[in-house]
Amino acid sequence: MLIIKVGEFALIERFSRKIKSGPSVIKGPGDDCAVLKYDRKSYQLFTCDMLVEGVDFTRKDDPYLVGRKAIAVSISDIAACAGLPKHCLISLGLPRGTTLALADRIFKGMYETAAKFKVDIVGGDLSRSPRIIIDVSMSGVVEKKNLILRSGAKKGDIIFVSGTLGGSMRGKHLKFTPRVKEARYLTRNFKVTSMIDVSDGLVQDLGHILRAANAGALIYEDLIPLNKSAKGLSDALYSGEDFELLFTMPLKEARKLSAKRMDIFKPFGEITEKKNGIKLIDKKGRERTLKVKGFRHF
Amino acid sequence: MLIIKVGEFALIERFSRKIKSGPSVIKGPGDDCAVLKYDRKSYQLFTCDMLVEGVDFTRKDDPYLVGRKAIAVSISDIAACAGLPKHCLISLGLPRGTTLALADRIFKGMYETAAKFKVDIVGGDLSRSPRIIIDVSMSGVVEKKNLILRSGAKKGDIIFVSGTLGGSMRGKHLKFTPRVKEARYLTRNFKVTSMIDVSDGLVQDLGHILRAANAGALIYEDLIPLNKSAKGLSDALYSGEDFELLFTMPLKEARKLSAKRMDIFKPFGEITEKKNGIKLIDKKGRERTLKVKGFRHF
Repeated sequence: MLIIKVGEFALIERFSRKIKSGPSVIKGPGDDCAVLKYDRKSYQLFTCDMLVEGVDFTRKDDPYLVGRKAIAVSISDIAACAGLPKHCLISLGLPRGTTLALADRIFKGMYETAAKFKVDIVGGDLSRSPRIIIDVSMSGVVEKKNLILRSGAKKGDIIFVSGTLGGSMRGKHLKFTPRVKEARYLTRNFKVTSMIDVSDGLVQDLGHILRAANAGALIYEDLIPLNKSAKGLSDALYSGEDFELLFTMPLKEARKLSAKRMDIFKPFGEITEKKNGIKLIDKKGRERTLKVKGFRHF
Repeated sequence: MLIIKVGEFALIERFSRKIKSGPSVIKGPGDDCAVLKYDRKSYQLFTCDMLVEGVDFTRKDDPYLVGRKAIAVSISDIAACAGLPKHCLISLGLPRGTTLALADRIFKGMYETAAKFKVDIVGGDLSRSPRIIIDVSMSGVVEKKNLILRSGAKKGDIIFVSGTLGGSMRGKHLKFTPRVKEARYLTRNFKVTSMIDVSDGLVQDLGHILRAANAGALIYEDLIPLNKSAKGLSDALYSGEDFELLFTMPLKEARKLSAKRMDIFKPFGEITEKKNGIKLIDKKGRERTLKVKGFRHF
């Protein structure tokens, strides 16, 4: 049997089941970051993301932006747990025929992005590889009281997203700004019950929140903030890499947030019973059930 | 200009120069691990290693051993700083045509090796990739007083290696046991001035120690412990991946160590003036200068 028959998420699930974790692990596989014991007040966050030429970027993309993305996706994972990114390692696989100019430009995108977010690049591994591969692993910290996980959404919670959705395919996946500041603002000022970054597409990532909460959702087409480059609702629902914050909070908190920062954070639905699945109310008021799908490697 | 003209180490040097590190970084790029502030008594260690199909292993190798190696090389880096490995993340790139049996077997090699060394696998990233790619990033801890770096060797120090050398090509690179226990024994009982794991070949890794110490070395062919599968001295000097500990200590300490554990740790040379480079005294007593070479990706 081939792994494509099993599918990406089932394969991760299969591997994760084999792992037994020690007492220093607060949260192992299955969230945006691993959460580890650190000190009296804080947890350490730990995440990695691999970019593969031909899958996550192509040779036509500006290598500066490819390097930028490699760092930014891990920062986005730290942000999704409401933490601050601190240190990273870079494993870089390059073909023998790579020009110095190309390597320099990838690296410039990486270190300038790291510097902008006050992340120290502390080491790495350089390897020969038939295609360009960039794997960044990053650590961060989050105060225990500020940690937000994918799990924790409750029935009746309002579902929000930051920024706009559906811009990924038209370049946003290379140019997004990780929402560190916004996540810190949220966790410091509101009771957020769950959070994830949109990296597999809105519906699929909402699916992760719902699975963890054993819940369903009702969302409104009218309220989904479309990126101006999106060609239609489908881009917002299923295109992978908007790297926006998708989060939930109780109605009372949602009212407070909406009164303050409706410019960035848009409510577009609510958490319901599991049996409802994900229901969309379209612009004409008709209801339809959405299939949980989005970007999958396998 | 192509990166192969620049060479692996000059390229790493080029990238490293661009990086400015904050006050939490005790040691950034250029050692076996990054060393980061952690708590009052300990540092955190952080390292990553990428294995690429066709470079570090082939489809003919047992995938269990490939998974094992992916974890073991990072454990070896932590050992080289005399630390204890704690947590790791696994980025795994797999071709679409990968069988579930193959993926399972790679993963089994990884989690059994992690478990054996009490390393928690806390997360990862699964990606589609034209070749199998495994990048493991690992954190560890080391008591401040026990940390050993590549730098610190002094003129007159005796050079030791653990185990035997030259077995890499005949399978040791897939089956070695990382020297965590041995490194802990050394740092707890002796004054070790510098340490590295042999991953690029003895001469090249000794070169790293000498560059950091601004020194040279005199080594004796007679004293280099050859692996029984080595075809000759050249395997011991230049074949990449023995993953033994290469370390230095003052003569007085060396005498103490040799009195106790000559079974594992073999003295085979001493640190000299930089101007001597690396000199080898062969079995007939003749002296020759060794070129610093070994495994390089570019």
